[in-house]
Amino acid sequence: MTKKVGIIGVSGYTGLELIKLILNHPYMEISYLAASKESKICEIFPSLKGVFEFDVSIADAKIASQKCDLVFLALPHKTAMSFAKEILKFNTTKVVDLSADYRLSLENYEKFYCLHEDKENLKNAVYGLVELNRQKIKSANLVANPGCYPTASLLAIIPFLEYINDDVFISALSGVSGAGKGLKESSHFVSVNENANSYSPLTHRHTPEITQMLSLVAKRAINVSFVPHLIPLTRGMLVSAFVSLKTKIDPLEVLNNFYKDEKFIRVRQTPVSIKDVVGTNFCDIYAKQNGSHLYINSAIDNLLKGASSQALANANIMLGFDELLALPTVGNSV
Amino acid sequence: MTKKVGIIGVSGYTGLELIKLILNHPYMEISYLAASKESKICEIFPSLKGVFEFDVSIADAKIASQKCDLVFLALPHKTAMSFAKEILKFNTTKVVDLSADYRLSLENYEKFYCLHEDKENLKNAVYGLVELNRQKIKSANLVANPGCYPTASLLAIIPFLEYINDDVFISALSGVSGAGKGLKESSHFVSVNENANSYSPLTHRHTPEITQMLSLVAKRAINVSFVPHLIPLTRGMLVSAFVSLKTKIDPLEVLNNFYKDEKFIRVRQTPVSIKDVVGTNFCDIYAKQNGSHLYINSAIDNLLKGASSQALANANIMLGFDELLALPTVGNSV
Amino acid sequence: MTKKVGIIGVSGYTGLELIKLILNHPYMEISYLAASKESKICEIFPSLKGVFEFDVSIADAKIASQKCDLVFLALPHKTAMSFAKEILKFNTTKVVDLSADYRLSLENYEKFYCLHEDKENLKNAVYGLVELNRQKIKSANLVANPGCYPTASLLAIIPFLEYINDDVFISALSGVSGAGKGLKESSHFVSVNENANSYSPLTHRHTPEITQMLSLVAKRAINVSFVPHLIPLTRGMLVSAFVSLKTKIDPLEVLNNFYKDEKFIRVRQTPVSIKDVVGTNFCDIYAKQNGSHLYINSAIDNLLKGASSQALANANIMLGFDELLALPTVGNSV
Amino acid sequence: MTKKVGIIGVSGYTGLELIKLILNHPYMEISYLAASKESKICEIFPSLKGVFEFDVSIADAKIASQKCDLVFLALPHKTAMSFAKEILKFNTTKVVDLSADYRLSLENYEKFYCLHEDKENLKNAVYGLVELNRQKIKSANLVANPGCYPTASLLAIIPFLEYINDDVFISALSGVSGAGKGLKESSHFVSVNENANSYSPLTHRHTPEITQMLSLVAKRAINVSFVPHLIPLTRGMLVSAFVSLKTKIDPLEVLNNFYKDEKFIRVRQTPVSIKDVVGTNFCDIYAKQNGSHLYINSAIDNLLKGASSQALANANIMLGFDELLALPTVGNSV
Repeated sequence: MTKKVGIIGVSGYTGLELIKLILNHPYMEISYLAASKESKICEIFPSLKGVFEFDVSIADAKIASQKCDLVFLALPHKTAMSFAKEILKFNTTKVVDLSADYRLSLENYEKFYCLHEDKENLKNAVYGLVELNRQKIKSANLVANPGCYPTASLLAIIPFLEYINDDVFISALSGVSGAGKGLKESSHFVSVNENANSYSPLTHRHTPEITQMLSLVAKRAINVSFVPHLIPLTRGMLVSAFVSLKTKIDPLEVLNNFYKDEKFIRVRQTPVSIKDVVGTNFCDIYAKQNGSHLYINSAIDNLLKGASSQALANANIMLGFDELLALPTVGNSV
Repeated sequence: MTKKVGIIGVSGYTGLELIKLILNHPYMEISYLAASKESKICEIFPSLKGVFEFDVSIADAKIASQKCDLVFLALPHKTAMSFAKEILKFNTTKVVDLSADYRLSLENYEKFYCLHEDKENLKNAVYGLVELNRQKIKSANLVANPGCYPTASLLAIIPFLEYINDDVFISALSGVSGAGKGLKESSHFVSVNENANSYSPLTHRHTPEITQMLSLVAKRAINVSFVPHLIPLTRGMLVSAFVSLKTKIDPLEVLNNFYKDEKFIRVRQTPVSIKDVVGTNFCDIYAKQNGSHLYINSAIDNLLKGASSQALANANIMLGFDELLALPTVGNSV
Repeated sequence: MTKKVGIIGVSGYTGLELIKLILNHPYMEISYLAASKESKICEIFPSLKGVFEFDVSIADAKIASQKCDLVFLALPHKTAMSFAKEILKFNTTKVVDLSADYRLSLENYEKFYCLHEDKENLKNAVYGLVELNRQKIKSANLVANPGCYPTASLLAIIPFLEYINDDVFISALSGVSGAGKGLKESSHFVSVNENANSYSPLTHRHTPEITQMLSLVAKRAINVSFVPHLIPLTRGMLVSAFVSLKTKIDPLEVLNNFYKDEKFIRVRQTPVSIKDVVGTNFCDIYAKQNGSHLYINSAIDNLLKGASSQALANANIMLGFDELLALPTVGNSV
Repeated sequence: MTKKVGIIGVSGYTGLELIKLILNHPYMEISYLAASKESKICEIFPSLKGVFEFDVSIADAKIASQKCDLVFLALPHKTAMSFAKEILKFNTTKVVDLSADYRLSLENYEKFYCLHEDKENLKNAVYGLVELNRQKIKSANLVANPGCYPTASLLAIIPFLEYINDDVFISALSGVSGAGKGLKESSHFVSVNENANSYSPLTHRHTPEITQMLSLVAKRAINVSFVPHLIPLTRGMLVSAFVSLKTKIDPLEVLNNFYKDEKFIRVRQTPVSIKDVVGTNFCDIYAKQNGSHLYINSAIDNLLKGASSQALANANIMLGFDELLALPTVGNSV
């Protein structure tokens, strides 16, 4: 019953998180790890010494498809679609893509990213927000794992779409791991420590993903202004969204009803905290009304619910397992 | 020409910042320091050893008024007004109050704080946002130094009041020094580090201060939703405000025109950073339009422009000095 | 085959870590949680919401002994021995004590702590450094779980005792969680952040524990100077020890030989890093010779190998389980 | 009476600190700023906007010597000596070199760095530890500004040299700014945050500088083992040194006597803290004896007393000013 899975692009943060999750999975086995150069996984991640020894190959779609029932792509956009396209050709292997390549409509993708080189699969890709699409994910060969900001934003706002006007203002905070392992001035310790700033305000590329999904679910155009901030911590994400209400509601009741069957959404009675979700697959949500204004507040671990553990939930569904298998519930914080 | 100044409530963060600023002032001399118990200033602040030796007395309004031309009150609300009331009776000494006691209308104060015990002075107190009120401050005996969040929010939003609708959404980030030196679970290192959360969303007591001042300047009711967040850094404050525009504008041009004569407002071409203002009296502001939405972004040092250096600017004006004397321009960051 | 375990003093950091470890244990079940007042575990630790619901009682030795095969005491010294003494009277329940109460000789204890009120059990308590004492632990009813600094120091230095002179200098770094959840000025975020300092240099109460154990193993008096430092991080501990060698050795070979059968000691080829062990039961060790000087360097998670996961290893042995069961190997860091 | 000074290599952390110090100097004027490419100083350091506008040229020794009475070299080793050599040829301009190029004997330099290309000036360079060499500095044309670790270590240990044996063990902690602005994996926020580790233990290139100076002062060979650690803060340095005593002493009395005339050495009664010196030119020192062992503890701001403010003290002396002019006494911390 065990399934073989691989990770292409394993050397980043989400690659490590995927490994750690899968090591704890009763029915998944890592059969393939690939990156842009050969190495051993413990050289890339010294914390794995004595825990998990495995060779990292140079990524090859054919070998990946031979060795794996499912492949996670933890690659930059554009590179991801080149691998997905090849792997899916062999028809033996499913793909969970953690990049942006299959999340947007063709029009939006080409507007905000670049030319799309795999339009065929784009048509059939399923947007892997499990709370929204778990039925479609069951039969998908290709799932586009949602972005971290969209995950936290959509889970917070979707329950209220029928009660609100069309203007949505989102202020989001993220730890530095969201910017990846690459060496940039903006990720230097001295730049980040004792600092905070917004970046790409109103133009961040997660904006069209949020807008597209909110509009799709609402069946009307939602006008989203999205401003992400970098704050001095390693992992975790907090969303503070502001909307205007068309009607009086009890926001916590709306949330409780909407998510009553979701094990990984926790509706909170007080503002949410990053530390309560770091290390877990949980999305904590809180909301409060003030006259015609509604404040909605959510928190996730950007590397887990916002990336790797959400990807594992998708993989569980695609491979016929219980969706909840090996999803982390116990966090890192004290 | 030198004036004698005192600080009552010197043992907190703003007390230390006031001392450091005044030590650098060519025409002010510290003649009185008081707190709730006797000590020496270097016992409270070991960093001052070898720099400034001074006895700290138990606070006494009469002695303060005898020893000082001007007194800074760095006290909790309610305690502050009890001292202000006494000191002003002697008619010899001006007061800059860093608490909330004289910032609000009587109605608002009693709704959000407690009964007001000095209504007489409340009537004549001037709200010490120097960019707004420097004429009135000149002749004031009592200045209510603005709160940190209101300072950053008002300076960001006031220039746009004539162009926007009445709904204002403010998401603000603050370092832990804003919560004071008191020992609380929420200020414990382990609670703050690797964490972030909003607190008192929509109900924080700086909300009526922002609302009152925006409405006063706009001459219409402004509907403010204000959500502060605690983030893991010691000092610094960032405001991200969202509003809807009634007309098309060039936001940076609006800011440049509005603040063209202000030495301590810097209009930025890109989103502002806390690290560029920490240690200074600057307020950096940036704004960007997206269709009908406007994003406004400001940064200050919560302990300086948001408290002690703004208080010094007020004191400079009240004592007839050049407003800019000893206001810090050179920051702490690298 | 499942054993019932309890935790008294569950509201601190080590209590939470114990819960998280036991939740993941195939053959242990939490049957009792106690603290100084009644509550629910999710009120103390909101991160456990939806994961583990359990009532926290007021600590009672008799009830604990009725409900548990083994009890972990996560209490301050002195309080711990009052509970251990009572629980062990019933002769049904084993005890792992995480305090200092049973770690030292009577003489040392009364010199550095206070009068000992349970001398009878002190005689039979086993010092629970599993790498040293796992045979004795098997049959122990009471195990004194080692302190965090002693764990990291002893594991680093013991392998070299036969090659070195009697003077041992230890400089150790610890995260703030080591100081506990209590509210103290020294744990306030603003005190810790952007700061570092040594504390209790040469007089810290872990010194006699290190000295006693090193001397016991070396069978000669070892003269230890121990200086701990507080650094701005939540969890993790790093030891840098300096000794003089009596002979030329290959330090890494010495370590490799000494620890060749230990799954949770990793000998490193380069200086160790806190981030490689945080979240795990590992102790990473490195050493380097320079002429007659030897530098020894170790890292542990102060809350796990330095407290809760070491306690679990002890409990595993005492209850007849595989020592390694549920000890965490996969860390928190990326 | 005003003197003109320049900074070559202004784009790093020490360059910015030098600018900020000189802006506050009553008799120094910045007449030249140079780096490896042309720009404006506010583009490199946005915090200087509205404070100091100046063009940054491509470094040229001849122009520097024409424009400046004294030049600070804030350059990497090897590059520094190429400029010093050229500038000193013109015989019009003094040099304070912040690199390692003139700190060591020729033999040590070539052993630990590279071939020396300016042996002539090396002979006459003065080691700029002002507490040790202020007489020689007065007439020097070239001062080698001490390294940060050597500054903190030497000031701590020199007073005790006559009382101790020859083995000196130094464990030092430094903030990340000590590693410079360059982009390296080890300076990435995610690598540093919630981590600590020693680096280059026993082999760090500041070791020969400490050894050479201690031996020179002691007039005997001192055997130094030096281990630096990187800890998660931006600036500040803490030294914990361990030595064995040949005689009983009162360590604080030794320090008080030795430094009784030094305004920037503060002898402390308790362990020193980085936060008490950050932003200042102070070196705080504490020491404690335990039998034959002596613990010595010092703290400095690595970018100021360990670099730029010490360089300014040297420049003050070389230019005939009061040594203490514009040296910062008031720190950044609260």
